[in-house]
Amino acid sequence: MANIKQVAKEANVSVATVSRVINNKGYVNEETRKLVEKAIKELNYVPNEFARSLYKKTSKSIGVIVPHLNNPFYYGVLEGIEDLAFEKGYKVMLCNSAENSEREAEYIKQFMKYNIDGLIIGSNTEEIKKYTDLNIPLISIDRIISHDVPSVTSDNFGGGAIAAKKLVISGAKNIVHFRGPSILITVLERSNGFNSYLREHGVTCDEVDLAFIDPDPSLIRDYLETHPDTDGIFCDSDYIAALVLRELQLLGKSVPKQVQIIGYDNTSYSQIVIPKLTTISQQMFDIGKEAMEMLSILMNKETLGSKHHIIPVRIIERETTN
Amino acid sequence: MANIKQVAKEANVSVATVSRVINNKGYVNEETRKLVEKAIKELNYVPNEFARSLYKKTSKSIGVIVPHLNNPFYYGVLEGIEDLAFEKGYKVMLCNSAENSEREAEYIKQFMKYNIDGLIIGSNTEEIKKYTDLNIPLISIDRIISHDVPSVTSDNFGGGAIAAKKLVISGAKNIVHFRGPSILITVLERSNGFNSYLREHGVTCDEVDLAFIDPDPSLIRDYLETHPDTDGIFCDSDYIAALVLRELQLLGKSVPKQVQIIGYDNTSYSQIVIPKLTTISQQMFDIGKEAMEMLSILMNKETLGSKHHIIPVRIIERETTN
Repeated sequence: MANIKQVAKEANVSVATVSRVINNKGYVNEETRKLVEKAIKELNYVPNEFARSLYKKTSKSIGVIVPHLNNPFYYGVLEGIEDLAFEKGYKVMLCNSAENSEREAEYIKQFMKYNIDGLIIGSNTEEIKKYTDLNIPLISIDRIISHDVPSVTSDNFGGGAIAAKKLVISGAKNIVHFRGPSILITVLERSNGFNSYLREHGVTCDEVDLAFIDPDPSLIRDYLETHPDTDGIFCDSDYIAALVLRELQLLGKSVPKQVQIIGYDNTSYSQIVIPKLTTISQQMFDIGKEAMEMLSILMNKETLGSKHHIIPVRIIERETTN
Repeated sequence: MANIKQVAKEANVSVATVSRVINNKGYVNEETRKLVEKAIKELNYVPNEFARSLYKKTSKSIGVIVPHLNNPFYYGVLEGIEDLAFEKGYKVMLCNSAENSEREAEYIKQFMKYNIDGLIIGSNTEEIKKYTDLNIPLISIDRIISHDVPSVTSDNFGGGAIAAKKLVISGAKNIVHFRGPSILITVLERSNGFNSYLREHGVTCDEVDLAFIDPDPSLIRDYLETHPDTDGIFCDSDYIAALVLRELQLLGKSVPKQVQIIGYDNTSYSQIVIPKLTTISQQMFDIGKEAMEMLSILMNKETLGSKHHIIPVRIIERETTN
């Protein structure tokens, strides 16, 4: 790659002159400017942002780490982040930690070396607490790491409670929660919201843990076969809900007449099945946008009004509940 | 953030000594090394990779640009890239161009400034041709940009032909192709493969263009209502195929008895519907892995055996074909 000296030589000017043209600072006469720009173009010279960003202490880019990509929640959030970032002139460098704390740590190191201006992290690992003393603006999404680190989370407790309310009001008595892995804090919060509403109304429920990626349909089938009285089902994703609907239909059950189902996320799965799924909708785009908004306040060295933002969820009633 | 001078001061040694410790080069006595390491730890010092990577001309990271994230094809490919990249010690910086050529150009510039060692681009824009003269190893995925730029693509022509063969052999006569946007080269290639097999066997077909993201179900409904004789349907995604199945079921058609359907991608959509979809499976993971393999050959300054790799597809027969 060409360097600034080669550009100066090609344009027959000093390195300082090339630097003035690149940084658009100080006087350069018009003819000289054109010569330098021509040389830059001909040599395909890219100004050395390393040195510039070190000097300017800004790279106009932010880092985003997500625990996985194969998940509609995260790309909804990413859309919100990218939308506002571009409006504000920031580039978004994205890394997938794959829920691996070593990869997470390596990416954070890399970002620090790249002089990013801010970092947004979605993480399920415990190690994330180590990064609270990084010397750059940091926002956590989808979970609260500590009191000090600003966060944007979805109202998982509320989502569980809304689903419970709908099933109880619609008359369900034998309820099961096909949830995600209960080691995840978001899953536990949803579970707590669901159970606390049910408890208040004297209803109990069973819980079956499933993987979010490739949940095993035989676990669903086994439960439904051994619990034929089940009449209300809450699922932690629309994909799980679609699998449940499939198994119920194969067992000859009528939905919502005999069994009601509520999914989670309002993804396209909820609209391709017959009947269409009632589901809890998370405002992923708003979560991403809010995270970027808070990050840009911190990057401008201003103070946040409140540190922890919880974005509300809502129920979308379709055809799998009464 | 602490700099190397502060570390040197804290450890009471010269900057050159700190540099020798960081780069693990030259003699440093054990006691001094410990002092420097202690100072690095206490000050939370991150070695300045900008300068180091300029000197070493490597950052052990690669850039990947994808046209969108909300797409199972791309995260399959990403998994393949990341898997092999980590095995080989590379970090993967990912950017979403959102099919916007300006964003694409900005990200490429940013990557060049970061001294990435190589670049993998998935792009649908025409402007991508401008980047063929970047001075770093470059691999194109999902399309051939030019003869010079090595590429890994899926066998879209073959995918279309295999689908046509299955429908013709199973006796379909009135065939429609619900395809993606025909401005995309991958869609056109699939169409060409599908039509060329049909032509050779004296069968014609209709074509309906749909969006890949949020395809409009009313376009599907309108076609099926005005073409009640339709008995064979090829769809460019499993999601489109699931929507088609839904509309057929609402029209009271029996699948596969009256109408056969073939989807594309072998995603989870194909498994949650009743009956399960017959589909064309692309080897996304293999495409990503092959791209990373080729990139690492180029980054090692070795020569590629062949420049353009086409990864085969296969049909997965389930319940929507005879």
